[in-house]
Amino acid sequence: MSCIFCDISAGDAEASFVYEDERTIAFLDIAPLNAGHTLVVPRTHAASLEEIEPDDAQRIVRVAQRVAIALRRTGFRVEGVNLWLADGAAAGQDVFHAHMHVVPRFDGDGFVVSLPPDRHRPDREELNANAAQLRSAL
Amino acid sequence: MSCIFCDISAGDAEASFVYEDERTIAFLDIAPLNAGHTLVVPRTHAASLEEIEPDDAQRIVRVAQRVAIALRRTGFRVEGVNLWLADGAAAGQDVFHAHMHVVPRFDGDGFVVSLPPDRHRPDREELNANAAQLRSAL
Repeated sequence: MSCIFCDISAGDAEASFVYEDERTIAFLDIAPLNAGHTLVVPRTHAASLEEIEPDDAQRIVRVAQRVAIALRRTGFRVEGVNLWLADGAAAGQDVFHAHMHVVPRFDGDGFVVSLPPDRHRPDREELNANAAQLRSAL
Repeated sequence: MSCIFCDISAGDAEASFVYEDERTIAFLDIAPLNAGHTLVVPRTHAASLEEIEPDDAQRIVRVAQRVAIALRRTGFRVEGVNLWLADGAAAGQDVFHAHMHVVPRFDGDGFVVSLPPDRHRPDREELNANAAQLRSAL
């Protein structure tokens, strides 16, 4: 199975690199939401969030934090930053090599997140029951 | 300045806890997108992503990864998971104590991200110039 991010990591596909070390690469998204939109990727192939080695998960967020800080020192328009990771097609994952987006944001950039206005608002009793269910699965 | 997440960390405000250790807490969002929507928060107050101590940044993503894995073992509807961190009001940050969302997702859950269809698509030359600018700021 060919993987574009593995190819980029190996130097076999083109990318505009922001950062690399022995475990992690970061390069610009080719369809950026805004200028400076960066993807942070573990070199070791991991299709899903679950498959990312814990050490790599920690590294990608550390690199993402550094990129987010650096973005505010550039000439790009950066009034805010989103970190975003999509795990699974239902969550919007498109490349099945796990990656974290670092997205520069500014007011009126056209990025709109819509939630259903009538979504369920649980009371504390229900929240506590849900938390207990999740704790027992940890 | 009062901070609701500091109050929750201190046990002075109510929350439905999923996880806690000496540096990190995780509890259910009171306005969940979907059942199981969890916030992972460093106990040490940090208003922004930049202010999160690197060790805490690594811890919150590790806890977020564990919660994401646990969510799929619960009875909640979880076909995918998003990790989401909003840094700054322009990025949608509402509580100014940095936190990472762990959001269970399923097809048709009503969560819609819209991007401007006519947004700029840079060519490789422009991407390379942008990457160089960002590298020099790292």
